[in-house]
Amino acid sequence: MAEKRFSNLDLAKQVDAFPYEDTEPEAYQAMMAAANLYTLTWKDGTPLGYMLPTVVDELEQVPLAIRGPVAIDRAARTVHAFEAGATEAERTRAVAAVMGHWRERGTFEVLRRGWRGELWPVYGSGAEVLYSAERAGMGLLGATGYGVHMTAYVRDDEDGDGGMRIWVPRRAADKQTYPGMLDNAAAGGLMTGEEPFECLVREADEEADLPADLVRRRARAAGTVSYVYVARDGKRMAGGGGPPGQIYPESQWVYDLELPRDVRPRPKDGEVAGFELLGVAEVKEALARGEFKPNCALVTLDFFVRHGILTRENEPDYDEIVRRMHRRLPFPGPHQVAAA
Amino acid sequence: MAEKRFSNLDLAKQVDAFPYEDTEPEAYQAMMAAANLYTLTWKDGTPLGYMLPTVVDELEQVPLAIRGPVAIDRAARTVHAFEAGATEAERTRAVAAVMGHWRERGTFEVLRRGWRGELWPVYGSGAEVLYSAERAGMGLLGATGYGVHMTAYVRDDEDGDGGMRIWVPRRAADKQTYPGMLDNAAAGGLMTGEEPFECLVREADEEADLPADLVRRRARAAGTVSYVYVARDGKRMAGGGGPPGQIYPESQWVYDLELPRDVRPRPKDGEVAGFELLGVAEVKEALARGEFKPNCALVTLDFFVRHGILTRENEPDYDEIVRRMHRRLPFPGPHQVAAA
Repeated sequence: MAEKRFSNLDLAKQVDAFPYEDTEPEAYQAMMAAANLYTLTWKDGTPLGYMLPTVVDELEQVPLAIRGPVAIDRAARTVHAFEAGATEAERTRAVAAVMGHWRERGTFEVLRRGWRGELWPVYGSGAEVLYSAERAGMGLLGATGYGVHMTAYVRDDEDGDGGMRIWVPRRAADKQTYPGMLDNAAAGGLMTGEEPFECLVREADEEADLPADLVRRRARAAGTVSYVYVARDGKRMAGGGGPPGQIYPESQWVYDLELPRDVRPRPKDGEVAGFELLGVAEVKEALARGEFKPNCALVTLDFFVRHGILTRENEPDYDEIVRRMHRRLPFPGPHQVAAA
Repeated sequence: MAEKRFSNLDLAKQVDAFPYEDTEPEAYQAMMAAANLYTLTWKDGTPLGYMLPTVVDELEQVPLAIRGPVAIDRAARTVHAFEAGATEAERTRAVAAVMGHWRERGTFEVLRRGWRGELWPVYGSGAEVLYSAERAGMGLLGATGYGVHMTAYVRDDEDGDGGMRIWVPRRAADKQTYPGMLDNAAAGGLMTGEEPFECLVREADEEADLPADLVRRRARAAGTVSYVYVARDGKRMAGGGGPPGQIYPESQWVYDLELPRDVRPRPKDGEVAGFELLGVAEVKEALARGEFKPNCALVTLDFFVRHGILTRENEPDYDEIVRRMHRRLPFPGPHQVAAA
């Protein structure tokens, strides 16, 4: 049987899978009709996330004493929830009560098996944190997940095609999500209150055993990658997991780290099986074989664009790929402090 | 009187000035109603450019023997023209005849004073060149202009903020377009058949006296910047000029050139008054004062994003700026070989 090959556009569409209303109206309408999404909406009308009808129904069935007031508009397809608390802390407790209730009852597999005990922010307009939610439950709310991804490389003008080689880790075989797949050198999700660069320094230590002072000195912010992922089969992305059809808007701060030749990243916390120093052609081949965790593939394509490896000349789908990497997200947050 | 200051978003909106239908529906509707734009359309239905009604009327009044058949649908607001020739060369001759007619009669200031004698490509689907048009007349057709822009810099970890200093040229005072404004180290528009990198090598020689072998060895492709410019007052952008309200979709291949400290770009062809090596803070100040040619400002902002100088942390409008730099263009071309 022929092995499935992925074009770069296939890879981009795997991650930025939510159809575009302007250029893919039929796919967009089909998706909206099939998914029947509700918009989790704040009291000022700001949309916060896309919720599946199954999740909305389960939310309604949580006892009022636990969930607090919930207003569901079946015609407008909006959900108001977690608005009663006067402070961020009170609202966070209300969300935690609902997530805990669902976890105990086994309502959603993703909470039963994927619970992380980590609080992620849900933003309102002006990038105000309205409340935080258990990481594994972010997908149930459909709110935007934030993270950091770093590509580590060494200059190699002699042997490396593209003038470089890239340090590529393989995820541990027993990792809960995407076991055995290729990854970026370091990556992590942002908890409430966490600074992206501090998160990166921590993850680079934990996942790649890279010294904090080296990362602080040499890692370079290189922009952001944003996309709207659609869970196909309950598979998770960075920000947790959920039922098929669940929508995950995600936004990643991306960093480049040029390493000296004598520094080798290596596994430390057991999340990574090992690192390999791959030529650009080898990375391209691994991408085409679908060996990368999907959002890490997109971050790698962005790296290739910024480093002149992927160009309009050699990539027929160049512009659509670049557009999908920088998708406008439908919800507010630090990516959109001053929306038009 | 207080000096006008420009935020980075102001600068981005100056260049990517055409409103977005999805996020600025009111501005979009107002623009469409005010401009009354026609779509120059190919026989297979592919849109090629946005034409102002005044240009459509002038086109209709060109004698049939010169312009060939033109079909104007006043209800659908479409224009079919230059379709009769069987070959690219024949169609190019028809376009040239119309442009020459207008030039002789002084119909459009931009052709009378701005004629360049340079042919630029107009693309159909599959990035096929349908015909070429005089550079100064591209804006009249509203078709996408393509070009290259390069930022030259030196590493400076001691004195340079952001770890670098940037070579910034000032345009000659007698230059036809944007005299005296700041520019990128080298830039140019792509003639039909011209390769972006070859164009860059030529412009870097002509505008900055940079040796071709140095540019070939050290310049790095770093992606693209696309935007839809709207002429406010007949001012021109890279791709020519035209009446106020004329729409200019443009797409630039961007390159970075890290120069050794002992290489100094300098004026050669008289287009540039001189080069200065500015710190990042000085470049930011010049941007805020509106001293950069508008699309060069956008290319500089993209450079800042890719080099971690402009980030979500220090730029409240970060995501909107990044989106406007990577605008989806409404017409086909090498930026969109395989549209969805």
